Amino acid sequence: MDIGIIGGSGYTGGELMRLLSQHPEGNIKAVTSRSRKGEKVSDTHAHLRKIFDLEFEDLTPEEVASRCDIVFTAVPHGAAMQVVPALIDAGIKVVDLSADYRLKTDVFENTYKLKHTDPREVVYGIPELHPEVPSQQFIANPGCYPTGATLAAAPLANAGLIERVVFDSKSGISGAGVEPSVVSHYPNMAENIQPYRLTTHRHRAEIVQELTRLDGSLKSISFTPHVIPSIRGILTTSHIFVKKQLSQEDVSTIYGDFYGDKPFIRLIKGIPMLGNVRGSNFCDIGFEVETGSYRIVVISAIDNLVKGASGQAIQNMNLMFGLPETTGLWSPGFAP
Amino acid sequence: MDIGIIGGSGYTGGELMRLLSQHPEGNIKAVTSRSRKGEKVSDTHAHLRKIFDLEFEDLTPEEVASRCDIVFTAVPHGAAMQVVPALIDAGIKVVDLSADYRLKTDVFENTYKLKHTDPREVVYGIPELHPEVPSQQFIANPGCYPTGATLAAAPLANAGLIERVVFDSKSGISGAGVEPSVVSHYPNMAENIQPYRLTTHRHRAEIVQELTRLDGSLKSISFTPHVIPSIRGILTTSHIFVKKQLSQEDVSTIYGDFYGDKPFIRLIKGIPMLGNVRGSNFCDIGFEVETGSYRIVVISAIDNLVKGASGQAIQNMNLMFGLPETTGLWSPGFAP
Amino acid sequence: MDIGIIGGSGYTGGELMRLLSQHPEGNIKAVTSRSRKGEKVSDTHAHLRKIFDLEFEDLTPEEVASRCDIVFTAVPHGAAMQVVPALIDAGIKVVDLSADYRLKTDVFENTYKLKHTDPREVVYGIPELHPEVPSQQFIANPGCYPTGATLAAAPLANAGLIERVVFDSKSGISGAGVEPSVVSHYPNMAENIQPYRLTTHRHRAEIVQELTRLDGSLKSISFTPHVIPSIRGILTTSHIFVKKQLSQEDVSTIYGDFYGDKPFIRLIKGIPMLGNVRGSNFCDIGFEVETGSYRIVVISAIDNLVKGASGQAIQNMNLMFGLPETTGLWSPGFAP
Amino acid sequence: MDIGIIGGSGYTGGELMRLLSQHPEGNIKAVTSRSRKGEKVSDTHAHLRKIFDLEFEDLTPEEVASRCDIVFTAVPHGAAMQVVPALIDAGIKVVDLSADYRLKTDVFENTYKLKHTDPREVVYGIPELHPEVPSQQFIANPGCYPTGATLAAAPLANAGLIERVVFDSKSGISGAGVEPSVVSHYPNMAENIQPYRLTTHRHRAEIVQELTRLDGSLKSISFTPHVIPSIRGILTTSHIFVKKQLSQEDVSTIYGDFYGDKPFIRLIKGIPMLGNVRGSNFCDIGFEVETGSYRIVVISAIDNLVKGASGQAIQNMNLMFGLPETTGLWSPGFAP
Repeated sequence: MDIGIIGGSGYTGGELMRLLSQHPEGNIKAVTSRSRKGEKVSDTHAHLRKIFDLEFEDLTPEEVASRCDIVFTAVPHGAAMQVVPALIDAGIKVVDLSADYRLKTDVFENTYKLKHTDPREVVYGIPELHPEVPSQQFIANPGCYPTGATLAAAPLANAGLIERVVFDSKSGISGAGVEPSVVSHYPNMAENIQPYRLTTHRHRAEIVQELTRLDGSLKSISFTPHVIPSIRGILTTSHIFVKKQLSQEDVSTIYGDFYGDKPFIRLIKGIPMLGNVRGSNFCDIGFEVETGSYRIVVISAIDNLVKGASGQAIQNMNLMFGLPETTGLWSPGFAP
Repeated sequence: MDIGIIGGSGYTGGELMRLLSQHPEGNIKAVTSRSRKGEKVSDTHAHLRKIFDLEFEDLTPEEVASRCDIVFTAVPHGAAMQVVPALIDAGIKVVDLSADYRLKTDVFENTYKLKHTDPREVVYGIPELHPEVPSQQFIANPGCYPTGATLAAAPLANAGLIERVVFDSKSGISGAGVEPSVVSHYPNMAENIQPYRLTTHRHRAEIVQELTRLDGSLKSISFTPHVIPSIRGILTTSHIFVKKQLSQEDVSTIYGDFYGDKPFIRLIKGIPMLGNVRGSNFCDIGFEVETGSYRIVVISAIDNLVKGASGQAIQNMNLMFGLPETTGLWSPGFAP
Repeated sequence: MDIGIIGGSGYTGGELMRLLSQHPEGNIKAVTSRSRKGEKVSDTHAHLRKIFDLEFEDLTPEEVASRCDIVFTAVPHGAAMQVVPALIDAGIKVVDLSADYRLKTDVFENTYKLKHTDPREVVYGIPELHPEVPSQQFIANPGCYPTGATLAAAPLANAGLIERVVFDSKSGISGAGVEPSVVSHYPNMAENIQPYRLTTHRHRAEIVQELTRLDGSLKSISFTPHVIPSIRGILTTSHIFVKKQLSQEDVSTIYGDFYGDKPFIRLIKGIPMLGNVRGSNFCDIGFEVETGSYRIVVISAIDNLVKGASGQAIQNMNLMFGLPETTGLWSPGFAP
Repeated sequence: MDIGIIGGSGYTGGELMRLLSQHPEGNIKAVTSRSRKGEKVSDTHAHLRKIFDLEFEDLTPEEVASRCDIVFTAVPHGAAMQVVPALIDAGIKVVDLSADYRLKTDVFENTYKLKHTDPREVVYGIPELHPEVPSQQFIANPGCYPTGATLAAAPLANAGLIERVVFDSKSGISGAGVEPSVVSHYPNMAENIQPYRLTTHRHRAEIVQELTRLDGSLKSISFTPHVIPSIRGILTTSHIFVKKQLSQEDVSTIYGDFYGDKPFIRLIKGIPMLGNVRGSNFCDIGFEVETGSYRIVVISAIDNLVKGASGQAIQNMNLMFGLPETTGLWSPGFAP
């Protein structure tokens, strides 16, 4: 497969290249960046020195499409909808890592306060929940928080058991991107934890969309994100109130049945840790049922740049090309 | 005031000394440690070099009492009840930093799986909630998590407005003490966040006791703690579901009325940060009302070793001696 | 004493206020910031909420001088020389925290590539090395790296024993200031250590000036700084090659004689740690003599914002007003 | 190749497995641990869940040898010499990751205060410096600090240009192993940097051995290690005093000629960062010549667990089996 990356100077672009360097079937044919045109990719992504001898180019979508079988768009929301239509029209496959195609058009416009110029029905690319991925030409790659939160609660939602769920998520700061900011300034981030958008984070719309798809009657879904002093990773603490009392064994069965054969889901006894998924495409899930109550605490851990972004994008690519979904992604977390 | 510290080799003992070094009325007359008898206090607490020229002693409670007007007991739970009675009988004032006297006896025995050998009625020393502190001879100093959680929710509980509350707390690792452990091992803690005792942490009993004291009808109180890569601090995210819709202004008024004149409570617009309370006795509180829902997210931030332990103990001491509660404690957080 | 701070929005300005809040003789009468004129100081320095009810003002040096007995200038290099002359002419005392007056004029102009508009002879304010501080109207407050490095090597330099010294310094990132940058971006700083200006850092000129003042024959002085994943602190590893073999005891005597009565110098057996000086004005010094060689490794640890900046400035202020140098500064480090 | 790991429960054992999971020619046939016999490997190394379905066994060296073409010994120093002879006698290949065979016997016994029970001549496995690796049955895998330090200075040593060198090394804490300790306790390590064994670290003997092999006249080699708040990585600041003045270009040529074709050495303009080598087998090297002096500062960066241990061990294995040395190791660093 010949691969293009539109918008390759950020963290998700760099992570696509890191992961693709280990992919047996993929060859990167184009990496674009308007502002870094002509510069070596490894000047920006110094960890890729000697691994890739690529230069950033400033290309039209059509030019990228002409070289590639698949293109990843790793540009900001609002920008993706400017380049995706030409890629699709060129007949190649596309995975968009932005938010532009994840939500129903009206929800998108409401959430992002932006007119959508290319409304279309697109499959939301969590392959564990969307068996229709393999047949698609175009996939909307999910947000990082929604991946971790949705995977944590999906089995119970699917069983129609959730009355109310509060997702309290903790993310590494790389999710905020490569640009220095007040939040990412080391003296503000170290020895701290920063909640933000306590009730209004835009990723909530994706979580709602996916969980209500599984259980249309589910109404109470809350989401509060935090950034922690970590480069990578999202740990989601899901406080789930269920409709009837369940035992530890009941919940174990529900999760086992739901995820049994999914390679990247690891159901564990004990509590997931970011270190065990760091750099990998795994989602580790553990839980505990509160005695004498209707509350279950489900913890999920992912790497926000891998299962939460570039790894999942490659997982989608694999499926779209009829490859095993684990191709090039079957590597362990990076611990310690 | 002549002061004794029983159990001075741990973090709360060290923090008592750090804070008391700035107290205009307090003089430390005895610091005990069985295992370090005869060693300089500053060999253990190297930051106190030149500040104190003290040695650890191995003394009976009676010996300590004979030198002091007040004694802080900073020993593990189960050990405090062995020394406190003798101190009280000696007629001096006592603040116990352990868990032994915080709970009603039956709740304590259930929670700590331990027979209580000295059951008595003791005031729970959050001075903002317990105006009876000044008249006491003996105070049970609260746990770190309960201080942060209770202060975050107390105004709404007091108003009878809470239907359900989920406390998702994030603590610095110093709360786990001075002894190295698997959890505190740097490669396990850095770049990570570790949830633990997802539904069964013993501090929940204190939170329940204090909030139901304010609202006897409050039933649903959940608490899940995490440790984060930070030395100090507890940030508590309180997901509060209320009985009727409230505006941002309503909540602001409720908190303002409840805490208006309390010196160590800072109600802020925006979101509390650990850096702003680090090293200080302040509790910063901020909140956001979810539009179109019955959820309010209230965030509190404290330093676990100060307002969550040694600072609050000194605040209690001040009140027990008729001093302004801010004496020796009126210092800003330590930022950056 | 009535005190002014010109340039109060950065870390050294905030630290001056944090420390002065504990000073029994000092009252802050003016804090300037052109860009934040009219804003509350505690909107910028949120840890100072309730401690100070001050507003930033945009004042001329003359206006500040008219309210104050002493002014601290905490502005960038190049800017200080624009405001200092008017302050001095007003007859008040001045401590400048910038680099403008630390070096001989020609060395300054060479080092900073900047014409000096106010050349004058100024005492370099490391009080442990400059007994002439008390009689001064104006003091140039030293740089953070030079404070740690010079104090580590001064006793051996003074004894004429140094043949060659390599200072390998490791600083917390707060030394780079309050503005977010690529270096301070959390994903770049965490899990990393960044050497910079390997042979050309401007602070080297101060170290050379001070050590050659003690030993005019000392020629080989190297300095390489690094930033580490820490908010505060400078640890300096001084690799000192001496002219004759010395024992551990010899060196101990040399340091003890040189620093014996200085309150803020703590000579320790063992190795200094940043945690023990964090937030305090202490400089901890330890060393080891290499067996069978002429090398001695001397380690010093300071808090870059306290002994390396604002604390030392207040120490200078105390001496200039005839107060004990420890006034308002006699507090322990902040550990853990 | 069938592979055994003796001592698989520590960090280097886990890292061997992480890396071998990506090796196209290697199959792990035995992992031993006496204390964890019968337990799943992934209970200890949770990041390996689903990747390996292995159990720890308690096997004799002969039993391991009977299943394997090569064995890695990842046991403490002193223990390796108990198992290596039997492995060698069994005719299989062996790479020892302990210190037991790195030094000449007399130097080993002096340095480790331990009688050597299996003295033999062994090639020291830095492949970039030892072209004799491919023909060996047995390789002593180098220490982490010596790898970084030796690679930084080897070209100048080889050119006979070094008069004196001071290695000031900064290591992530994983080098101290998997067991919690006072040094690795998060509150002691975070916001700190800990120098240790200022003049007496045992790894110095390896550096001396390797550099004097290149230049027998080189006498002055100093080494001071530090641990920094990082899980992985060693950054070495080499303060090199040379015998004659060299330009930036001279040094560039010397390093380029010496390392030109070595795949894992990356000579860079600018300053190496740990993030760029994290998880990879690369050694990044950069330098700066001090103007008007004989000092050159050379910086090297490696991952202590990869190029400094398990990665280099696999690189040696590849060469011993006639494979390209990059087999299974050609992956980029893990940034951000």
